[in-house]
Amino acid sequence: MADTTGVAVMGVSGRMGRMLTRAVLDDPRTHLAGAVEQSGHDWIGQDLGVAAGGAELGVIVTDDAAEGISAAEAVIDFTAPSATVALARVAAEAGVVHVIGTTGMDDDDIAALDETAGSGVIVRAGNMSLGVNLLVQLTRQVAAALDTSFDIEIVESHHRHKVDAPSGTALMLGDAAADGRGVDLSEVSDRGRDGITGAREEGHIGFAAIRGGDTVGTHDVIFAGEGEQVVLRHVATDRSLFAKGALKAALWGQGRAPGHYDMLDVLGLK
Amino acid sequence: MADTTGVAVMGVSGRMGRMLTRAVLDDPRTHLAGAVEQSGHDWIGQDLGVAAGGAELGVIVTDDAAEGISAAEAVIDFTAPSATVALARVAAEAGVVHVIGTTGMDDDDIAALDETAGSGVIVRAGNMSLGVNLLVQLTRQVAAALDTSFDIEIVESHHRHKVDAPSGTALMLGDAAADGRGVDLSEVSDRGRDGITGAREEGHIGFAAIRGGDTVGTHDVIFAGEGEQVVLRHVATDRSLFAKGALKAALWGQGRAPGHYDMLDVLGLK
Amino acid sequence: MADTTGVAVMGVSGRMGRMLTRAVLDDPRTHLAGAVEQSGHDWIGQDLGVAAGGAELGVIVTDDAAEGISAAEAVIDFTAPSATVALARVAAEAGVVHVIGTTGMDDDDIAALDETAGSGVIVRAGNMSLGVNLLVQLTRQVAAALDTSFDIEIVESHHRHKVDAPSGTALMLGDAAADGRGVDLSEVSDRGRDGITGAREEGHIGFAAIRGGDTVGTHDVIFAGEGEQVVLRHVATDRSLFAKGALKAALWGQGRAPGHYDMLDVLGLK
Amino acid sequence: MADTTGVAVMGVSGRMGRMLTRAVLDDPRTHLAGAVEQSGHDWIGQDLGVAAGGAELGVIVTDDAAEGISAAEAVIDFTAPSATVALARVAAEAGVVHVIGTTGMDDDDIAALDETAGSGVIVRAGNMSLGVNLLVQLTRQVAAALDTSFDIEIVESHHRHKVDAPSGTALMLGDAAADGRGVDLSEVSDRGRDGITGAREEGHIGFAAIRGGDTVGTHDVIFAGEGEQVVLRHVATDRSLFAKGALKAALWGQGRAPGHYDMLDVLGLK
Repeated sequence: MADTTGVAVMGVSGRMGRMLTRAVLDDPRTHLAGAVEQSGHDWIGQDLGVAAGGAELGVIVTDDAAEGISAAEAVIDFTAPSATVALARVAAEAGVVHVIGTTGMDDDDIAALDETAGSGVIVRAGNMSLGVNLLVQLTRQVAAALDTSFDIEIVESHHRHKVDAPSGTALMLGDAAADGRGVDLSEVSDRGRDGITGAREEGHIGFAAIRGGDTVGTHDVIFAGEGEQVVLRHVATDRSLFAKGALKAALWGQGRAPGHYDMLDVLGLK
Repeated sequence: MADTTGVAVMGVSGRMGRMLTRAVLDDPRTHLAGAVEQSGHDWIGQDLGVAAGGAELGVIVTDDAAEGISAAEAVIDFTAPSATVALARVAAEAGVVHVIGTTGMDDDDIAALDETAGSGVIVRAGNMSLGVNLLVQLTRQVAAALDTSFDIEIVESHHRHKVDAPSGTALMLGDAAADGRGVDLSEVSDRGRDGITGAREEGHIGFAAIRGGDTVGTHDVIFAGEGEQVVLRHVATDRSLFAKGALKAALWGQGRAPGHYDMLDVLGLK
Repeated sequence: MADTTGVAVMGVSGRMGRMLTRAVLDDPRTHLAGAVEQSGHDWIGQDLGVAAGGAELGVIVTDDAAEGISAAEAVIDFTAPSATVALARVAAEAGVVHVIGTTGMDDDDIAALDETAGSGVIVRAGNMSLGVNLLVQLTRQVAAALDTSFDIEIVESHHRHKVDAPSGTALMLGDAAADGRGVDLSEVSDRGRDGITGAREEGHIGFAAIRGGDTVGTHDVIFAGEGEQVVLRHVATDRSLFAKGALKAALWGQGRAPGHYDMLDVLGLK
Repeated sequence: MADTTGVAVMGVSGRMGRMLTRAVLDDPRTHLAGAVEQSGHDWIGQDLGVAAGGAELGVIVTDDAAEGISAAEAVIDFTAPSATVALARVAAEAGVVHVIGTTGMDDDDIAALDETAGSGVIVRAGNMSLGVNLLVQLTRQVAAALDTSFDIEIVESHHRHKVDAPSGTALMLGDAAADGRGVDLSEVSDRGRDGITGAREEGHIGFAAIRGGDTVGTHDVIFAGEGEQVVLRHVATDRSLFAKGALKAALWGQGRAPGHYDMLDVLGLK
């Protein structure tokens, strides 16, 4: 164990928490060093493996974040904004790299993380996959290269359980497209197209959401011109992709200077 | 000319009217036998070819429908509901096959056409292509074969000038899917998905609309289950497809008994 | 256990064998009743669960097929032609339903199975998924409905480990298309298109194979005409799909009259 | 006419020649200044418009290239390698910009053009569209960013009349991908995959060709990894796209220093 990186996981009983735990256990470069759940959850005080219905793992689930990360060198956190902001301070004090996949943060949350990043290493991304982060860059670049005679449409497909539309990744791609064109997405965004919409306005960026089955996640950025179209597409074929990306961030963060990083830093795409 | 079918075209100055005129002129089985435009249009009284900036065609544009179809055996009509209902009576009296591509008809309009069809031959369809009509049938069949563990999504792409969403063809496909499941589309339809929608409801049929460039028209009917998906797709690659379908209907209607037919009759798909 | 169906699995140490074992264990309607591997394999004589590095399952791996299926009501077999033909006789004698996913059978193998099917229940299919079997039917139907002005192309994508092209499922779809047109696939098949091929011949059926990553399996049957295309597509999103189909066949076969059945029988698609 | 650029067209009776002629006539910035066909063609000596069955254009078709381009400021040439090499010298002497879309050139042909480019302006490209040239760049860039755990596959679809596979554009994309990885395409190319191919080799670049209907041209560059795929796609929706690109090159070349340019120069993508 001495040679592998200890990783703690937040929200271990949830869908993402279970996937993160499995990724940490499966990766030869890491070991599970902590497991945190919300107060009141019936896994608290139990061995994580036993609580999940499997073999003993030697890690007790706790509702005390400071304790949960005390033996770890990194903590991975796909939970909720308020919990994440609170954890950031604890992690910075403990010198533990904080990998954040939490979505739905507002400007105040981001500002709080920025402040904490003065003394701790934070890696935060809306999507932890290499391909999506590459697609974000390509989208910005192509949007800058093509003029508004090319209409931009962002189409995403996800499984039937997804509760919001468009996906956070689709909005991230939309922001990159708007940025490439030097406009503000909120002023050119066409969402939920339905009924008598009128002809498409030049320069707008449209979104469409498809839901069904067990689709992990597909995103298309379409640049549709007269006579031709360019499409940039990402297809996630395995849900564990995002957990693997988080692990990569946790390892990358070891020994970094304090700062608020994102996946482009981790992937060397900047 | 004696051996070819005379076809009159309604709304000859519009985008669809021009395409219909060209199709009639190009098809060796037909000749142009009439050209009608709205009262007040500056093409009225002129030769159609000359008015359109080309060579003389020997057909004068008129705003009198009865006169316009008097030398024809069929009339093709992609105009507006009220004009279409009025023309139906005129065509039935004159014994001229009435091919209707007009959209946006309400129940009263349909009832009026049904009545007229007691004495005239009417062929009416929301989409005149072979492939789309085949897709409608396949959609009904697959929707009946698969249970609601398969989520149905209908996704359509059209050019930037289209003013409504979803397309009429998408709604036709949605109706076929609902029919195959024995439900009413209006009760299970998810349109314009945007924001916090909650998880997808079992049995619902979703619609998404993509707009951009010069896409002629693409329709996907997705059946997304656990572990697998079946997709039925139609791609229109050439805008003249619809004019050719209308011509096929005009020729098919010759010598038929009075009735209100559709493209499934013409294509032998019933 | 008395109320659930006992299923034995052939080739338990392989990729498909493991997936089948997991499917049997996970399904509340079945229990694992036997585990067979080739002579000489080091799992022979061990408990299957322990051999696979997990908890004890109470089933000892054997290289004697008769013994391996003695406590089972069905056996699932994705192995090799000679082993499958031999097992068929053993299963028929023991009154055990034989579900066959083995590929690469020649005419003699099929004839041998046909003979055995006089006294045993055999369910055999090149692809056990509902969607693919439905697609086979749709392909035959659409190929019959459209004339040869529509070119048929079958395109399939699979993971990087697949060793043959086109996939067995692609060939099954090609056979269905040829059958719908009343031609023999071997006389109209265009495979491995490369170099100066000349223009496409009318009536031919083309195949293309894409290999890469971890794609479970995608099949497109394209009908490409003038002005329009119809595409029938199947996407497998989860590798366990095929194991689940095999289990469905094992359960369906209980109590059937002897015979050589396929998935269309199981799925009620005939 | 004084303010517009005079353009001569080579091979005016062919499919591409007709499309080029129409593009020159339709563009307000250009006028038709010459029309060349092969010796012996029955259009020689006739007015081009009349020969093509339309109205007089005031341009006589000639088989003498020097005469054909004598009134032009640019000549567009989608013919054959030997004719193109010969024309290059004539055009350079006359100070006429030479736009070359001819394919199938060998190294000697290219060397001859390079020499001629010392005194004339040559713009040559395998594909004249903005989107394809952008895709070539993106392909090189993504191939450099992703390691060989991502398998590269290039899939192209064209109409039934195309006689070669893979398309020249697919090979151009393959070259860019190989270049991005620092390898030689000829050493890693998998073409015409068929039969028992064995598992895919790491680092190889696969090609697949789909033929049917009237597809103008679609190209996919697939980067398929574990858990995710990135796809770069170009769809040509209108055949006139390539003629318009050639015209853009003809206008761009006016007043340039002698040199052998490509579409990346014209499009400002370098």
